[in-house]
Amino acid sequence: MNTGTPSIEINEVGPRDGLQIEKAFVPTEEKIALVDALSDCGFSRIEVTSFTSPKAIPALADAQEVMRRIRRPPDVIYTALVPNIRGLERAIEVGTQEMNLVMSSSETHNRANLRMTRDQSLAELTSILHAAQGTSTPCNVSLSTVFGCPFDGDVLVDDVLRLAHQLAEAGAAGITLCDTTGMAYPTQVAALCETVLRELPGLPITIHLHNTRGMALANAIAAWQTGVTRFDAAVGGLGGCPYAPGASGNVNTEELVHMFECMGVKTGVSLQPLLNIVRGLPQLVQREFSTPLLAAGHRLATHQPPAWLAEKFGPADGVHA
Amino acid sequence: MNTGTPSIEINEVGPRDGLQIEKAFVPTEEKIALVDALSDCGFSRIEVTSFTSPKAIPALADAQEVMRRIRRPPDVIYTALVPNIRGLERAIEVGTQEMNLVMSSSETHNRANLRMTRDQSLAELTSILHAAQGTSTPCNVSLSTVFGCPFDGDVLVDDVLRLAHQLAEAGAAGITLCDTTGMAYPTQVAALCETVLRELPGLPITIHLHNTRGMALANAIAAWQTGVTRFDAAVGGLGGCPYAPGASGNVNTEELVHMFECMGVKTGVSLQPLLNIVRGLPQLVQREFSTPLLAAGHRLATHQPPAWLAEKFGPADGVHA
Repeated sequence: MNTGTPSIEINEVGPRDGLQIEKAFVPTEEKIALVDALSDCGFSRIEVTSFTSPKAIPALADAQEVMRRIRRPPDVIYTALVPNIRGLERAIEVGTQEMNLVMSSSETHNRANLRMTRDQSLAELTSILHAAQGTSTPCNVSLSTVFGCPFDGDVLVDDVLRLAHQLAEAGAAGITLCDTTGMAYPTQVAALCETVLRELPGLPITIHLHNTRGMALANAIAAWQTGVTRFDAAVGGLGGCPYAPGASGNVNTEELVHMFECMGVKTGVSLQPLLNIVRGLPQLVQREFSTPLLAAGHRLATHQPPAWLAEKFGPADGVHA
Repeated sequence: MNTGTPSIEINEVGPRDGLQIEKAFVPTEEKIALVDALSDCGFSRIEVTSFTSPKAIPALADAQEVMRRIRRPPDVIYTALVPNIRGLERAIEVGTQEMNLVMSSSETHNRANLRMTRDQSLAELTSILHAAQGTSTPCNVSLSTVFGCPFDGDVLVDDVLRLAHQLAEAGAAGITLCDTTGMAYPTQVAALCETVLRELPGLPITIHLHNTRGMALANAIAAWQTGVTRFDAAVGGLGGCPYAPGASGNVNTEELVHMFECMGVKTGVSLQPLLNIVRGLPQLVQREFSTPLLAAGHRLATHQPPAWLAEKFGPADGVHA
């Protein structure tokens, strides 16, 4: 099959995109411990928190304290979502190394999620990008709903390209193509990634997938085959979208790492410490959820055969022939 | 991206491969109703039951009655698993149109699952294939563990090819490459499918995937890209493997159908009646399990925006622009 690059980079977004919609408030100390544990796994980036208004996202009201107190090994870039200039200032105060701005490529989702029209959001993001240029802090922009909007349906590729061009011209250091509610399918992912890579050469492109309809890993392969090398993912598959009933979480980091490492594609991420974190997640977010890779283990985590086999067939010599 | 054929065939294996490991016995009438409902969905084949000893698989002890009493629309092929000549005779008595034989490509799994060595299984299957030739009933062979064995680990491609050649020579009408416990990954699937298609030209090849580690749909795409056109799948993702802790079910039929239809690849299967069946599955098997596509709906099943949007932004004119 067509293959992509021999290594990819993973941006772990669980602490922000996962925890922001959890009902139980995760205590600040536990958020810090989560990020610190993730720091030892080998991620390129960790999206730590969001500098939104505590009223809008109470789950992440402790953004400044978390960002200030996490450990900072030098090979990880610590990022955060910022919605406005005030958020940018607060994020910079506590040493956030890269900003993630966000707007939707579809009109209704932008209005529902950000309470602004797309034009208003574009103006807001442009002002943040200009302000950030003076601080030499790179700002990535996550474009939501590029593979479909839960209100408006399919989104025009031209709308995505127009926004990506405008944001790149305004100074975006990269664009993330977000399948916000899990509407993307493989041929669509391949087509849009190819188009964006061709139309915006040199601009780092990240893909952000959700597993709502089971296609997250298939879509990851499709993106990788086009040359995309940066992937958002959330440990345990945390996350979701309040505006799309049934929308499940982000692509599961441990499944993404496992798949690419099986294929010989280097992710930089170590599976075992990551699975140790997954084991603690239901306790952390105070609800049960399924952790299939933790249950099954690595594909080559083999098992002892049933004891009666040796009795029936004699010693195992030659069994592995 | 590289694409496969514009249409595929789906073999629904839920009634056999799914129900065989359910703890609650599904009453005969309900099994018949399940198969009859599946018959209206558009599958090429339905694997109805298994003519194994009722002692070995009590869940399918009613094989003959189910096969005798299901409706038989003419465009569906009704198949069953048969483990030996006695099973073949029982299956033929009740009008089974195609047989599915099974053995493992790895030694230890064959011993654990079938209580025979691979050599013994090969002799048994050869005798069934020869007996079936006199009845003009086609026999497909499902080769288990071709992408890895939960006891022996990776399986040699040469072992798979040798068995496939021997079974084809003995009269197998097709070979199914089975990822019995969900150990396959996309590049591996592509490589083995390419090899088997090249080495056994003209022999129909089916792929049988499990979703244990989240890769079922990614593996389906990889197989389809090589030219494989036949897919096993189980409605609701029913199924599993008793010998691999954590091994989850078969690739979910509704997710497979949804993905390929989104890509414009015809499956022949209608999603809506299939989802109606999925809705009844937890009741049928007397346990809860997750049915994500039923919860989320088709990717274009869009939602009403929140009511406050119109108040804040005025009427929706232009929202969809």
